[in-house]
Amino acid sequence: MPKLDLSQIPFKGGSSYPGKLAEATAGRFVQRVGDAGGLTQYGVNIVRLEPQGMSSLRHYHMEQDEFAIILSGSCTLIDDDGEHDLQPGDCATWPAGEANGHHLVNKTDAPMTFLVVGTRTPTETGYYSDIDMMVKDDENGFAFTRKDGSPLTADQIGDDND
Amino acid sequence: MPKLDLSQIPFKGGSSYPGKLAEATAGRFVQRVGDAGGLTQYGVNIVRLEPQGMSSLRHYHMEQDEFAIILSGSCTLIDDDGEHDLQPGDCATWPAGEANGHHLVNKTDAPMTFLVVGTRTPTETGYYSDIDMMVKDDENGFAFTRKDGSPLTADQIGDDND
Repeated sequence: MPKLDLSQIPFKGGSSYPGKLAEATAGRFVQRVGDAGGLTQYGVNIVRLEPQGMSSLRHYHMEQDEFAIILSGSCTLIDDDGEHDLQPGDCATWPAGEANGHHLVNKTDAPMTFLVVGTRTPTETGYYSDIDMMVKDDENGFAFTRKDGSPLTADQIGDDND
Repeated sequence: MPKLDLSQIPFKGGSSYPGKLAEATAGRFVQRVGDAGGLTQYGVNIVRLEPQGMSSLRHYHMEQDEFAIILSGSCTLIDDDGEHDLQPGDCATWPAGEANGHHLVNKTDAPMTFLVVGTRTPTETGYYSDIDMMVKDDENGFAFTRKDGSPLTADQIGDDND
């Protein structure tokens, strides 16, 4: 039915980032509510950030509009213009192609949650503002490389067996 | 900047419904936060329903995914399956093409708010469940007709000069 039973949709940890970069989002847990409700044209996730957790590495999307609203607790939006306090009800938008790398960081000592929406597009390119990395998404899946398309270095992503 | 100044985005009344049908949403006020933030791929609106207000006539979309989350207060989701209570944090999804007419009605004695997301598509057809009306949206704008494409009748839409 249209009303979702949120108790049946798990908050999952994990990251698609390669190697040690995945550690960046260790404090992030994602509830995929749009997927659970059968939506395909955009993703809708409720995200819980534990204290010191962050939403992602600082990034921007070339093809996908992004929207967030704070649901509970508070966090800090960090972008090219600095730091911005976000409280429950505050909203932020990142239109596709605007090169303003951003992420949300929980600098408080309590968990917080936000809802985020992102368009689903057949292809996508994203750029990371603080490291030499980009991501391309197409019919073959995600591919993380340096911004010139060359492979990430061992220095960037580390190795569990080091 | 990405963080929106919500105090600068008005809640507007009004309706695109023809004739007396516009009265249905007299208790609905819409804050177009996605538009204000430059998003184009989907609409994001915060909607305030006054007591007895409703989100829309009961309808469903053929081409556009729809999502809602309750922000404050409570309301009743009415769809083909009956009535469902929605409290703050509750979410609902209506995938494109699922023929389950729905709307949200504020049956309480206090205002309530929800956030709603809908895909922007080049064309769209919507059907109204409780009356003989459909809407088509294309490069020429909205057109409301009976479900067979014939014009709405005076009995359906009335006339301010009656």
